[in-house]
Amino acid sequence: MTEPTFSAQIGAAATLTEARLARALAAAPLAGERLRPERLLDAMRHGSLAGGKRLRPFLVIETAGLFAVAPDAAATAAAAIECVHCYSLIHDDLPAIDNDLLRRGRPTVHAAFDEATAILAGNALLTLAFDLLASPEAHPDAEVRIALVRTLARAAGVGGMVGGQMLDLAAEGRFAAGAPLALALSEIRDLQAMKTGALLAAGVEMGALLGRAEPEAHDALAAYGRAIGAAFQIADDILDLEGSAEAMGKAVGKDAGAGKATIVAALGRQAAGELLAALVDAAETALAPFGPRAAVLAEAARFVAARRN
Amino acid sequence: MTEPTFSAQIGAAATLTEARLARALAAAPLAGERLRPERLLDAMRHGSLAGGKRLRPFLVIETAGLFAVAPDAAATAAAAIECVHCYSLIHDDLPAIDNDLLRRGRPTVHAAFDEATAILAGNALLTLAFDLLASPEAHPDAEVRIALVRTLARAAGVGGMVGGQMLDLAAEGRFAAGAPLALALSEIRDLQAMKTGALLAAGVEMGALLGRAEPEAHDALAAYGRAIGAAFQIADDILDLEGSAEAMGKAVGKDAGAGKATIVAALGRQAAGELLAALVDAAETALAPFGPRAAVLAEAARFVAARRN
Repeated sequence: MTEPTFSAQIGAAATLTEARLARALAAAPLAGERLRPERLLDAMRHGSLAGGKRLRPFLVIETAGLFAVAPDAAATAAAAIECVHCYSLIHDDLPAIDNDLLRRGRPTVHAAFDEATAILAGNALLTLAFDLLASPEAHPDAEVRIALVRTLARAAGVGGMVGGQMLDLAAEGRFAAGAPLALALSEIRDLQAMKTGALLAAGVEMGALLGRAEPEAHDALAAYGRAIGAAFQIADDILDLEGSAEAMGKAVGKDAGAGKATIVAALGRQAAGELLAALVDAAETALAPFGPRAAVLAEAARFVAARRN
Repeated sequence: MTEPTFSAQIGAAATLTEARLARALAAAPLAGERLRPERLLDAMRHGSLAGGKRLRPFLVIETAGLFAVAPDAAATAAAAIECVHCYSLIHDDLPAIDNDLLRRGRPTVHAAFDEATAILAGNALLTLAFDLLASPEAHPDAEVRIALVRTLARAAGVGGMVGGQMLDLAAEGRFAAGAPLALALSEIRDLQAMKTGALLAAGVEMGALLGRAEPEAHDALAAYGRAIGAAFQIADDILDLEGSAEAMGKAVGKDAGAGKATIVAALGRQAAGELLAALVDAAETALAPFGPRAAVLAEAARFVAARRN
């Protein structure tokens, strides 16, 4: 039997997650049987089924797999976290926020539809995430399902992703009230942990919850999740500096122009690269207790640090 | 002992819900301890603590009270549904949707802050709703908590409120693709059931869940919830036609101008008034099995139909 690779596993996770999402959107529960908001469903599909690496679903499925949870049994939770990620991209792209017309080489939702539809499609995807987690398909035990809801809500909300997005806008000086928010390095790290890290770490924690990890294993995996989350954002900032728009499928070089609060800007390219390497080491160290079963998660950390799109 | 009245009960529910919301926003769990998104929290407070009747929280608390659940024990679920209601108002008011600058006589969130902040504050309130329901404070039993999550997500999502908002925009001809969506009366009723009715009905159902209502009682209360939800929207449309901007604290007469899909427009003022009366009767009939304990809920149905702001 061939050893699984990161590339094969994330591909399989993507296929499974997209099938689960497509099913959720096809069977979207409607209060009025005679009236389907087709344009809304189309926009939700446009924003959630048009590619993407599906890294967060992979983290859910692969982490659950450490505890012998079958990929199918983790697919509903994986679809839920991807709903949150996709909603955040739809809203980030809006004219009032990043004003992007291109995402993964295709028109963004508000460009393909319109602004009102994009706002509502994002809201509907965020809400669908919790609908999915509440379903017995997410996990047979209600205690586990409610823990999944809590973990995802914490990671996505004011203390996580949305709070981080807001602080990021403040750091850019996007609000009339005064100068750009000046941040120390430790604060930039906090901001990034909220904006990007929290949802990636939640993927790992949701996998641990599905697997009913013991506290010690849960803590080790949470440390892995925090490390991979931080590494992802630094790699993203380096890519923004050095990547090509073609490989990325979106506009690049925007961070430097906007004076964003990035680790790369605060530390310089070289020291940021060293921090990135240290975070990959930390991720791998956190996985040590799981032995070779965690080889693919370790490979994921290296991939995240080295990715070119 | 004086009999409780609707006015006293909804006032008490509002006080309790606002205190619970204020506590949730003061203690918002933050990933980075050193960095609080204060502007986001301010916008969330502006959009959720600035008045409003708190009808949905009242329905949760009063329905739970039928089963001897203390108001305090229902306050977290009540705060959660109000988060969803308030987020929907913040997003509805956005320039890309209703473009309103005034709400309850005060500037809307995007007018007081800015558009990006209003989008993110809405998202954060929606997410906070599920965070609140996942807390053991919402109910000690995880089975009940997850049922609350499912009920609220269904009512708020693509098959409920957001889907109804989208259909409402389509009926107004707000999308470039073709003419306004022409709807039959039954379809307008479906649309309204999704847009407004679903969340009001969810308030009643969440109260029934907190009270662990038996299936028969649950069904009777669900029927009451659907009736009061439908009545609310018709009364709202009549108010829009006949109310004053001063009493309403927001712009009125917009529906007629925009050619909205309302029951009043479809049936005419008189027949809509008759339907409204029939819905109040249906609501009262559904409550019959609960006897005098449900007198305040019955009064709520009459109030909703007769309200002047």
